[in-house]
Amino acid sequence: MGSTQGNISDIAAYVTGRARAVRAASVRLATTPAEVKNRALLAMADALIARAAEIGAENQKDLDAGRAKGLDAAMLDRLALTPERIASMADGLRQIAALPDPVGEIDGMERRPGGFLVGRMRVPIGVIGIVYESRPNVTADAAALCIKSGNGVVLKGGSEAIHSNTVIARILEQAGAEAGLPSGCAALLETTDRAAVDHMLVQEQSIDLIIPRGGEGLIRMVVEKSRIPVIKHDKGLCHTYIDRAADLDMALNLTENGKIQRPGTCNTTETVLVHRDIAEKFLPPLAARMRERGVALHACPRALPLLPDAVPATDADWDTEWLRLEMSVKVVDGYDDAVAHIRAHGSEHTEVIVTADYPTAMRFVREVDAASVHVNASSRLHDGNVFGLGAEIGISTSRLHARGAMGLKELTCQKFVVLGDGQLRE
Amino acid sequence: MGSTQGNISDIAAYVTGRARAVRAASVRLATTPAEVKNRALLAMADALIARAAEIGAENQKDLDAGRAKGLDAAMLDRLALTPERIASMADGLRQIAALPDPVGEIDGMERRPGGFLVGRMRVPIGVIGIVYESRPNVTADAAALCIKSGNGVVLKGGSEAIHSNTVIARILEQAGAEAGLPSGCAALLETTDRAAVDHMLVQEQSIDLIIPRGGEGLIRMVVEKSRIPVIKHDKGLCHTYIDRAADLDMALNLTENGKIQRPGTCNTTETVLVHRDIAEKFLPPLAARMRERGVALHACPRALPLLPDAVPATDADWDTEWLRLEMSVKVVDGYDDAVAHIRAHGSEHTEVIVTADYPTAMRFVREVDAASVHVNASSRLHDGNVFGLGAEIGISTSRLHARGAMGLKELTCQKFVVLGDGQLRE
Repeated sequence: MGSTQGNISDIAAYVTGRARAVRAASVRLATTPAEVKNRALLAMADALIARAAEIGAENQKDLDAGRAKGLDAAMLDRLALTPERIASMADGLRQIAALPDPVGEIDGMERRPGGFLVGRMRVPIGVIGIVYESRPNVTADAAALCIKSGNGVVLKGGSEAIHSNTVIARILEQAGAEAGLPSGCAALLETTDRAAVDHMLVQEQSIDLIIPRGGEGLIRMVVEKSRIPVIKHDKGLCHTYIDRAADLDMALNLTENGKIQRPGTCNTTETVLVHRDIAEKFLPPLAARMRERGVALHACPRALPLLPDAVPATDADWDTEWLRLEMSVKVVDGYDDAVAHIRAHGSEHTEVIVTADYPTAMRFVREVDAASVHVNASSRLHDGNVFGLGAEIGISTSRLHARGAMGLKELTCQKFVVLGDGQLRE
Repeated sequence: MGSTQGNISDIAAYVTGRARAVRAASVRLATTPAEVKNRALLAMADALIARAAEIGAENQKDLDAGRAKGLDAAMLDRLALTPERIASMADGLRQIAALPDPVGEIDGMERRPGGFLVGRMRVPIGVIGIVYESRPNVTADAAALCIKSGNGVVLKGGSEAIHSNTVIARILEQAGAEAGLPSGCAALLETTDRAAVDHMLVQEQSIDLIIPRGGEGLIRMVVEKSRIPVIKHDKGLCHTYIDRAADLDMALNLTENGKIQRPGTCNTTETVLVHRDIAEKFLPPLAARMRERGVALHACPRALPLLPDAVPATDADWDTEWLRLEMSVKVVDGYDDAVAHIRAHGSEHTEVIVTADYPTAMRFVREVDAASVHVNASSRLHDGNVFGLGAEIGISTSRLHARGAMGLKELTCQKFVVLGDGQLRE
């Protein structure tokens, strides 16, 4: 493959050809036994470790180019593949190999009047297109999850990681094919040409689902241009609502954990809503805890006098996904006011109530519309591993097919299976 | 509402306004208790019966206009609302009222390490847009299924049924609101302006899902133009494969039932594939049975000598959804040849094998990719009622979210619910 890394003259033909080849391989992959898929995933993990030096050298090219382009320290850090990170990529593949294969599982088989059996069998979706930015470990993670669930995958990573993504994808391809996977079932588009994504989004004959992972701009562009169904992994503007009946120590811990446990993630608490009746008791210790943790607060007029270091919140702050050590704080008149604020400003991602009042907790669970609704539990818990899905490809902010944390099952669809002995429709 | 039935000056504003009003009502509908929804559905059924004469009079206007436009007898028959058909529409609503409400049901609640509970709760999708042709009973059926599953609905029917659809929708709206439904949760676009569909397909702020029901042209147009996710109810090019090990009497009955039980439907058998080893035994009795039933046969060169009345099949016949008393017949070299033909020409709708050989049956179930795969059972069995879903909005030919027969559950999505007592992410 000489035509790599940006030097492709006919990008439309290149993308179409790659997608078609994956479609062809995916038909065989769909019925490849779990043992073969698992053996291949383990071989891929071994190959990543064995060829870590090669990966490091290619990664260095990306880091050098990134530095020359003036990428900031955080971006360079996300791009860097240390030996530890390569080992952790390999571990990820081994974990996915150890998970049960969802393909072929039949749900709810029952005997119907007339005597035939009907149930739903899990089958791969077909070919999945993943469009992602920065972290090169996604190349291995996403390929492994798609392969394990029997799907072909077309990967399009960010241009800043092109050398890293290319070497990883080639190592995986070679190790997988040697271990018996249909050759070409996982293909990286080895180009930095931005038009490649546009061409990918119209391959509806070859690709069944597009999953974009990245910033708001990327997601919006994909949704607008795609002729293929999209499951968005969009931003999270998540709230933690401290009810009048909250245990205030628990509320303090949940707010802190929701904000600081990993501030750059989509399930981080960005706004805390506080019932007016407990504002005087809750806000001063919150101010102290957040000061200690280095979190800057943006406060509404009623919260401001109780938060010594806070700045006044602007209207835009209620719609801001901070993704860093900043948080908005608002005093609300009660449950209804909190839920109205969440409805107006939330992104239907993860919403938390802290309360000891049972009816209020049950109302929140019923009335708040989000991918994950939590009572007395950190917003950061919304995660495929934490929820027991085994692994996750991300957190869907779409409503259809898969909502919230997506694991292997969510990368499959179902078909009805009817087992009869001559039944007719009357 | 003076601006009805085609006389709307600003169609974009009209559609946007109707869709927004449904979105607003749908938020309340989402948490409306099952008792209220059921009472409303029963009241709607009663109102249809009580006002049958009014419906008949409006329907007569559509029939007169249809005759004047030269619609054929079959189309006029589909359009006609006799007292029996109105009664059957009302019965449909009562049956939907009697079904269990899927909303609020929690699947797979389990305790996770750390001690919190996590499960998935069914919630309405939000607002569903239905674009349909001809039969005015769809207005009542589709509205009832959406309401029962807690979804607002925007209906756009065919222009030839505008008077019938309008009177039905207004009767349902009035009866529903009087029985306590949020006013405006089910809205018909009361216009024959074709631009209305275009405007509907870009209401992504107000509509969450589009379901097109109708001919190929309608489906293709909707998929191309929609910015909203679409679940297609597309054509069915279904095969029945008669394996070498088939019971030939059973095969004859299944082929007959698959073809003639209701030839105009998407799960009708359009092509029968016959293993060469049994062609000489199976085809002559098939010819006799089909002659008796008035089915015209299009045969491949190997089948032709064994089917006295058949005409030679053209290449296009293998891709033709007859939807009438015609059928294509092909002799295949064996299982692999049959599956390859299905892969090349099938529409992934409903595929049948007739065989007494267990390994062949199991291979077919595993290897054939269709919304419903049947062993020794008629293709016509693929139906929400027959499969036990209670009612159906149609048969999805999409792979994501819902595949095959769609009932009430398929009109919902899920959210994670986490019940904790202070759990943090470590």
